[in-house]
Amino acid sequence: MQIKVLGSAAGGGFPQWNCGCANCRLAWNGDSRVKPRTQSSLAISADGISWLLLNASPDLRQQILATPALHPSEAGRSSPIRGVVLTNGDVDHVAGLLVLRESQAFDLFASPFILAELAKNTLFGVLNPDLVKQHKIHVDADFSPVDGLRIKAIAVPGKVPLYAEAANIAIGEESETTIGLEIRSGNARAYYIPGCARLTDGLRQRIAGADLLLFDGTTFTDDEMVAQHLSSKTAWRMGHIAMSGAQGSLAGWAQVPVAAKVFIHINNTNPVLVEGSSARRSVEAAGWQIAEDGMEIDL
Amino acid sequence: MQIKVLGSAAGGGFPQWNCGCANCRLAWNGDSRVKPRTQSSLAISADGISWLLLNASPDLRQQILATPALHPSEAGRSSPIRGVVLTNGDVDHVAGLLVLRESQAFDLFASPFILAELAKNTLFGVLNPDLVKQHKIHVDADFSPVDGLRIKAIAVPGKVPLYAEAANIAIGEESETTIGLEIRSGNARAYYIPGCARLTDGLRQRIAGADLLLFDGTTFTDDEMVAQHLSSKTAWRMGHIAMSGAQGSLAGWAQVPVAAKVFIHINNTNPVLVEGSSARRSVEAAGWQIAEDGMEIDL
Repeated sequence: MQIKVLGSAAGGGFPQWNCGCANCRLAWNGDSRVKPRTQSSLAISADGISWLLLNASPDLRQQILATPALHPSEAGRSSPIRGVVLTNGDVDHVAGLLVLRESQAFDLFASPFILAELAKNTLFGVLNPDLVKQHKIHVDADFSPVDGLRIKAIAVPGKVPLYAEAANIAIGEESETTIGLEIRSGNARAYYIPGCARLTDGLRQRIAGADLLLFDGTTFTDDEMVAQHLSSKTAWRMGHIAMSGAQGSLAGWAQVPVAAKVFIHINNTNPVLVEGSSARRSVEAAGWQIAEDGMEIDL
Repeated sequence: MQIKVLGSAAGGGFPQWNCGCANCRLAWNGDSRVKPRTQSSLAISADGISWLLLNASPDLRQQILATPALHPSEAGRSSPIRGVVLTNGDVDHVAGLLVLRESQAFDLFASPFILAELAKNTLFGVLNPDLVKQHKIHVDADFSPVDGLRIKAIAVPGKVPLYAEAANIAIGEESETTIGLEIRSGNARAYYIPGCARLTDGLRQRIAGADLLLFDGTTFTDDEMVAQHLSSKTAWRMGHIAMSGAQGSLAGWAQVPVAAKVFIHINNTNPVLVEGSSARRSVEAAGWQIAEDGMEIDL
């Protein structure tokens, strides 16, 4: 299995268009301690020929340009991108579907909840339904979106997308609003969970012994956006677990054996984005890597 | 008036994600005769401090990163982008509104038709209506979206967006589905018309004597996408006038005095994208420039 990190940042990317926080200022100034990052998406393949996208970020056109394996190889219209799997309905995971217009066939896989949210948007009509086939995926039922890959959706504690929030928002529910993906190819077993509000024993038991875990690295502390006066929302309120703290992901995953652990979907406020920072060193000391755009993992 | 071309390509950009046409192959291969181009958008300003976007392309995040004048200058959340004016509802002109999320105030100006199309998409709910104010603009009524600029919408022959097409599509109607913009600042008068299905005497009379015309340069020949086996649609069917031919824009504008004429919104199939090509030379000989990303015009 080949995995390419197309985008490693959370919604907004790094730097974020309207953000002058300490991290973003470093990025705007081209400081060598930080690398710019586009929004959350992976490309995976079993054979290096047919590729599957896990989430379609608003930066997808730029991500395809930066990734030769995803360029069209034929004289007319073509693409090695055969399908897209969505893990939730957030703008940073679905807006890239609009990039995939222009009469190209591919398969779209998402939960019934997410497909119903997409259907509330006429813009997605640019994806001709004769060419773009929608497939409902269900929790714990596996499917093979491209040759050589088997994927299973896992319900993880999450939240509905921001644009679908009603007056009373259930946060941390395990449902089809937010899923993680178990990916198998040959003997390899990997997990991609870019959004997760809290850890459960069920998740830990399922993932123990995996070759790779790509996990929600949105914030370092639960209140970091509040503390930086950028937002009134905690990570929990946005449906994400923080890295640090007694309830955080570093503590939560510490006793779970996984060959490689990588934080992904990293918000622009997260101090781990600064190489050499104390937060970055603490995360690396705990055995985690910080994903960056263009990172490649072979399993 | 300062004008920055953020994106000079038509929908899909250049190269287009799934296109292996002759032009796109040059671009994928990094050939020095072609410059990659992002999708259709301008930034304009009277004072160099407050900026207005004319259309919001799917590549907007990348375009902001490439344009220092549009970077946030304050410590918290901020942006010099004060507003957006839309000329139609096509994905290449509206999807960038999703980039402008993250609780930032700005003014959105569009025709009632286009605002109604946007309202059929729940995704735009990420633009908090308390912060993003929608303003209906009407043909031939001028408004001042930022200090020092006056804008007037002009009905031009056009077409509804692809995703809003019904069984019978009226092409070439002059209505609010497709508008051009007249922009005045001090004594300067400029026109931005990225989509126009045909020329009319009314347009020619209005624009005569202008300092600048940025005009629909989608295709060179009406049937170029059909001839290249890429699509069954002519330029006319997509709501665009071709450059060449007796009914084309080169002939249509030839007798109209305008200080500077620039083709913009250029499709990836258009041979004028290749520097030194016969099509490019013929257009330049007729007094036209071909827009490219990063181009700056001061009036």
